[in-house]
Amino acid sequence: MTRQLHLNLFLHDTGHHEASWRLPGSSPTANTDIEYHERLARLAEAGTFDSLFLADSPVQFNDPGRRPAGRLEPTVLLTALARATERIGLIATASTTYNSPFNLARRFSSLDHVSGGRAGWNIVTTAGDDAARNFGLEHQPPHIERYERAAEFVEVSKKLWDSWEDDAVVADRERGVHAEPSRVHVVDHVGKHFRVRGPLNVPRSPQGYPLLVQAGSSADGRQFAARHAEAVFTAQQTLEEARAFYADLKRRAGQAGRAAEGVKILPGLVPVIGSTEAEALAADAELEALIVPEYAKRQLAHLLKVPSEHLDLDRQLPADLPPEEAIEGSKSRYTLIVELARRERLTVRELIGRLGGGRGHQTFTGTPEQVADTVERWFTAGAADGFNIMPAVLPSGLEVFVEHVIPVLRARGLFRAEYTGTTLRDHYGLPRPANRLTSREEDVA
Amino acid sequence: MTRQLHLNLFLHDTGHHEASWRLPGSSPTANTDIEYHERLARLAEAGTFDSLFLADSPVQFNDPGRRPAGRLEPTVLLTALARATERIGLIATASTTYNSPFNLARRFSSLDHVSGGRAGWNIVTTAGDDAARNFGLEHQPPHIERYERAAEFVEVSKKLWDSWEDDAVVADRERGVHAEPSRVHVVDHVGKHFRVRGPLNVPRSPQGYPLLVQAGSSADGRQFAARHAEAVFTAQQTLEEARAFYADLKRRAGQAGRAAEGVKILPGLVPVIGSTEAEALAADAELEALIVPEYAKRQLAHLLKVPSEHLDLDRQLPADLPPEEAIEGSKSRYTLIVELARRERLTVRELIGRLGGGRGHQTFTGTPEQVADTVERWFTAGAADGFNIMPAVLPSGLEVFVEHVIPVLRARGLFRAEYTGTTLRDHYGLPRPANRLTSREEDVA
Repeated sequence: MTRQLHLNLFLHDTGHHEASWRLPGSSPTANTDIEYHERLARLAEAGTFDSLFLADSPVQFNDPGRRPAGRLEPTVLLTALARATERIGLIATASTTYNSPFNLARRFSSLDHVSGGRAGWNIVTTAGDDAARNFGLEHQPPHIERYERAAEFVEVSKKLWDSWEDDAVVADRERGVHAEPSRVHVVDHVGKHFRVRGPLNVPRSPQGYPLLVQAGSSADGRQFAARHAEAVFTAQQTLEEARAFYADLKRRAGQAGRAAEGVKILPGLVPVIGSTEAEALAADAELEALIVPEYAKRQLAHLLKVPSEHLDLDRQLPADLPPEEAIEGSKSRYTLIVELARRERLTVRELIGRLGGGRGHQTFTGTPEQVADTVERWFTAGAADGFNIMPAVLPSGLEVFVEHVIPVLRARGLFRAEYTGTTLRDHYGLPRPANRLTSREEDVA
Repeated sequence: MTRQLHLNLFLHDTGHHEASWRLPGSSPTANTDIEYHERLARLAEAGTFDSLFLADSPVQFNDPGRRPAGRLEPTVLLTALARATERIGLIATASTTYNSPFNLARRFSSLDHVSGGRAGWNIVTTAGDDAARNFGLEHQPPHIERYERAAEFVEVSKKLWDSWEDDAVVADRERGVHAEPSRVHVVDHVGKHFRVRGPLNVPRSPQGYPLLVQAGSSADGRQFAARHAEAVFTAQQTLEEARAFYADLKRRAGQAGRAAEGVKILPGLVPVIGSTEAEALAADAELEALIVPEYAKRQLAHLLKVPSEHLDLDRQLPADLPPEEAIEGSKSRYTLIVELARRERLTVRELIGRLGGGRGHQTFTGTPEQVADTVERWFTAGAADGFNIMPAVLPSGLEVFVEHVIPVLRARGLFRAEYTGTTLRDHYGLPRPANRLTSREEDVA
């Protein structure tokens, strides 16, 4: 069998394009409507996507006017989607900076139980002072400290997920023993950031623990991914950059003692599809014309850490932007955007148009065949194990992708025609993690 | 119309009796099986219960052998149940000591959206050092400090729930304004325990915020309930005590400037039902015989803060137990149990038998008519606005209650035959809370 492509659907209310909600027929309540999300999830499952995914940050970003802003908490939303679907994986973003390991590990274990082994956790450290101010801090902790805490958070979580052995529950009515006490372990974690006694108060879940996903592409982010991530979402603008990133991350995983196949790399892809290339370009232009430049400029200024009035819509970016080292937020996204603007000599208005669809992710505009060609090229050129599909407009962009692009990928033998496993790790071809706290010698006879 | 009774179903895996899991036919995985819970929820909805409820503590209590121990996190579990039901209210317990207001307020708002306005929050401060040790502390904060933090936590949460006005989302495609910025408010809470900037990142939910429920009956607990709770779960052993508690709490609510009808009081009730009284007593005896005394003795010792070896199964409780003031955990439950044992001169073994079903809640054993009689007597005597129904065995105890007790209550005109509203507050006859941050004068024209 040919090496198989993996596809994740990145859900985003009315679509990833910031103006998608302004199109006629868009749902005004897409961000809080559970039935809307259930329809999307079932559609993605009909397309045999490996998984669907929700980004998140515990903060209301500026400009609630700009686009659907508030959104449902991802572990809650995905629990509902778990019960509306049967096979597709469900990946929720959650912050290691603004959660406690016990509570979060328990919620993911619960989601894995409720979904029958389909939970994934996109581990983020949450950039920005705005989020910090919702949690008693004036400023976000430094980038390096957030990643250090994240690493310890994952370590504690794994201990908690392993604190019940897989066969701890015996439900022996005769002896009156529900779980064997010798198979439920205190973890007694003591570290720099956390002290957690354990055990977790949930038996080990179908997958053992959720698939671990990561999406930061800075040096700290890559190092973290190399050690912990089983899937990586990344923004890559060109095939060359994507290949370099792919090779670098697989190398780092090897250095961390892991198999290269143990970490799947999925660049973001915003497909804008038409029956003809001209139709696709027209759809893209229609969306771009609906962007409110003032909103977009304010957000760009926020990301670049410059006052909004230093950006002129009809000029290129100012020359005196800070270096990536000085950015404590989304480092790699910052550099990607600055390099894109400089490489193509874009005005701020043009840059805003380019970012409107995918916020730095690659937009592929064309016919279904053309999109499938690009997917195949990246996949076979060692730039991707699959893609994080970010429809510019939902649900229509997903409908078109499922109806017209996926059949092409299937016909080429690149993508499954039906699910062959039941868990999220099954779909990604990854093994269920062994329990590291198993200690048979203590066994009760 | 006669004053209407309210009924809440307290879900508890195989039932509230600690030995219920040892009965033939019980589900060995009841605590983690989502379909099992969905069946129970649908059954309760067929019985037009106002709500169902999950207790919780972020800790694995001792003795995983004793009974199904680990359990799914309540906001996750209830989200799944929200999608399996249409009308019944869904009340999740969550701790103000071991959560942050932003994250928890958001999850409850999300659950209220996903359920179409059926979310409730049982606010607990979480007793015990064991839980504290899962969150970096060696000892739990003192009782008074936990309640002080709880009050501030609720205050912050209400601000966050009000941070989006009800009509903030306008989705005005023409102007390119999704939510009116003037109707989304920073909250800038600064208090002793929390600093939270806000706004919340979820639009205001169908109920505005979840029904607020409270279950602590200590002096601190009552004062908290009088100020904040819309429903109160309580353990009362005798009609006299229940009437005194009821009168005291309604009086305190009045002193706090609230209407007495604004807080519904629901004592716990463990119904053990048979076609005849003798059959019911035999069922109770069968369960009692299945209790493993060593497990139960250890837990009793833990609750009484004495070493397990100081308790002798065949003697009464030691005379030198500490006073309630010295208890930093479940104060009122401690006193209830000690008084029960002393009043009836119970041996430890007998006390364990009495606590096996409801852990201090009142057990009503008898025919459906007898159980309905007791319910009516307490309800009309000013001891209860309704009951927190705690079947000793699930699902059978719920089936019997729905099939045989509820029809009697309906025939007497005490209980609804069908739902008349759609939200949890509708069921309890409580108004939707107004938004306190609404500020029309800032309105954009």
